Amino acid sequence: MMDSTLVRTAFFVSDGTGITAETLGHSLLTQFEGVKLRQVRMPFINSAEKARECVARISQAARDDGVRPIIFTTLVEPDLNTILRQTDALCLSFFETFIGPLEIELAVKSTHTIGRSHSSTDSNSYKDRMEAINYTLGHDDGITIQGLEEADVILVGVSRCGKTPTSLYLAMQFGLKAANYPLIPEDFDRRALPEGLDKHRAKLFGLTIQPERLQVIRNERRPNSRYAAIENCKQEVAEAEKLMRKEGIRWLDSSTKSIEEISTTILQEIDLERNCY
Amino acid sequence: MMDSTLVRTAFFVSDGTGITAETLGHSLLTQFEGVKLRQVRMPFINSAEKARECVARISQAARDDGVRPIIFTTLVEPDLNTILRQTDALCLSFFETFIGPLEIELAVKSTHTIGRSHSSTDSNSYKDRMEAINYTLGHDDGITIQGLEEADVILVGVSRCGKTPTSLYLAMQFGLKAANYPLIPEDFDRRALPEGLDKHRAKLFGLTIQPERLQVIRNERRPNSRYAAIENCKQEVAEAEKLMRKEGIRWLDSSTKSIEEISTTILQEIDLERNCY
Repeated sequence: MMDSTLVRTAFFVSDGTGITAETLGHSLLTQFEGVKLRQVRMPFINSAEKARECVARISQAARDDGVRPIIFTTLVEPDLNTILRQTDALCLSFFETFIGPLEIELAVKSTHTIGRSHSSTDSNSYKDRMEAINYTLGHDDGITIQGLEEADVILVGVSRCGKTPTSLYLAMQFGLKAANYPLIPEDFDRRALPEGLDKHRAKLFGLTIQPERLQVIRNERRPNSRYAAIENCKQEVAEAEKLMRKEGIRWLDSSTKSIEEISTTILQEIDLERNCY
Repeated sequence: MMDSTLVRTAFFVSDGTGITAETLGHSLLTQFEGVKLRQVRMPFINSAEKARECVARISQAARDDGVRPIIFTTLVEPDLNTILRQTDALCLSFFETFIGPLEIELAVKSTHTIGRSHSSTDSNSYKDRMEAINYTLGHDDGITIQGLEEADVILVGVSRCGKTPTSLYLAMQFGLKAANYPLIPEDFDRRALPEGLDKHRAKLFGLTIQPERLQVIRNERRPNSRYAAIENCKQEVAEAEKLMRKEGIRWLDSSTKSIEEISTTILQEIDLERNCY
């Protein structure tokens, strides 16, 4: 999908997955509004031969574009970095830049181990993340009230306010077991939380949403339904907020927040940071 | 959860979620095996007042630890960076380091907009990701064969070989609609793919796994079951590989790969990169 209006190419070069290089590169590029770059991911560049192939591809892009590419790289090996620099490009090498100061500060030589960031399937934190994903999928949308004592956090809120993607993000990024329960009209009629949640009040966190935004989201799902009607959305949101207020549940408004922002805010609020590395 | 054996603190300081700062910091720290740091996330540091609170907390950690902390920061605002540098710490400031060279290269001033990385809920790529998550959840574990024409990729493999977490990662990180289908004994008996997948052969990608690893994973789920028995695992894996070979489906072995590595490899293989930023 080449876009001919884009005249410059960005490469994300890594000896591992390239996810860190891409995250960092994207982050920098968000600061240049309107600048569009063709983007090419070059993962698993873990040998001199692959590095040279990579250089050939970057040089080709330079010729095709008529302007030198930008490289965002997390290559660890000095030799591979040296090869990469043989092409005419702006090369932002994250590890090369920061490993030196860190080695001095920690008074330890780095291991220069390639492909470390996303490869440790045997680490406890990786296992915790996989277990958290399984747990979260098994406790999505009020499927069960079994096993809630294991939950790190339990999200509540009206249908389609963002509970499911937030729960999955909390599990995948932070390794948290995140259950979620919809607040539905019969809860409002009973003026009580869904059954079984009472005992776990300290883990409860609410999401709310502006009714107008909820209407848009629900309408995509079930066009022109009573479910998506603005009057119904307004009423459900008002009832949910009333219930959360009565039950003393902390909540935040998800209307204009990304799942990353919602998740980070929840982490702060419930103080669930895992502080040890 | 303070661990008294850890004598030094790392801070991830950001005007946004801190996820980029943490990704960078973790990535660098994987290069220092055996070095353990207390880790503190400081997100949403978007004002001088909050930056000064942050400095106070970092200075306190320096006093408590008796050694200066390490700061990984993605603060954009020069003024906030200046405040942060008033504390005695090793400060690795990601934007400060790399925005300058990028501004020169792109011949454009950066916008210095704070909290950009994970905040654009109105962007198309964010909406695509949310839609992909919903799609993927709705097409997990062979729930339905409806709507497969919309899938970007369809994973197949024996039960518990990693299809679900990989599908979710593909959706969440890359915005891909990833369906997944188990290959089960009745497929092996019929010597054919699950019904409905034939038409979508070009999107199929297989995961396989070492039987010994599969046994461990299944045994955690259903201890001492026939399902988890090594003989059964061996047979299922052999049958699944035979079927995938017969059907000409590309596959990879997930046994020692993280979901990040599996996902990145799949992206490369099926050439599903979205090249435009």
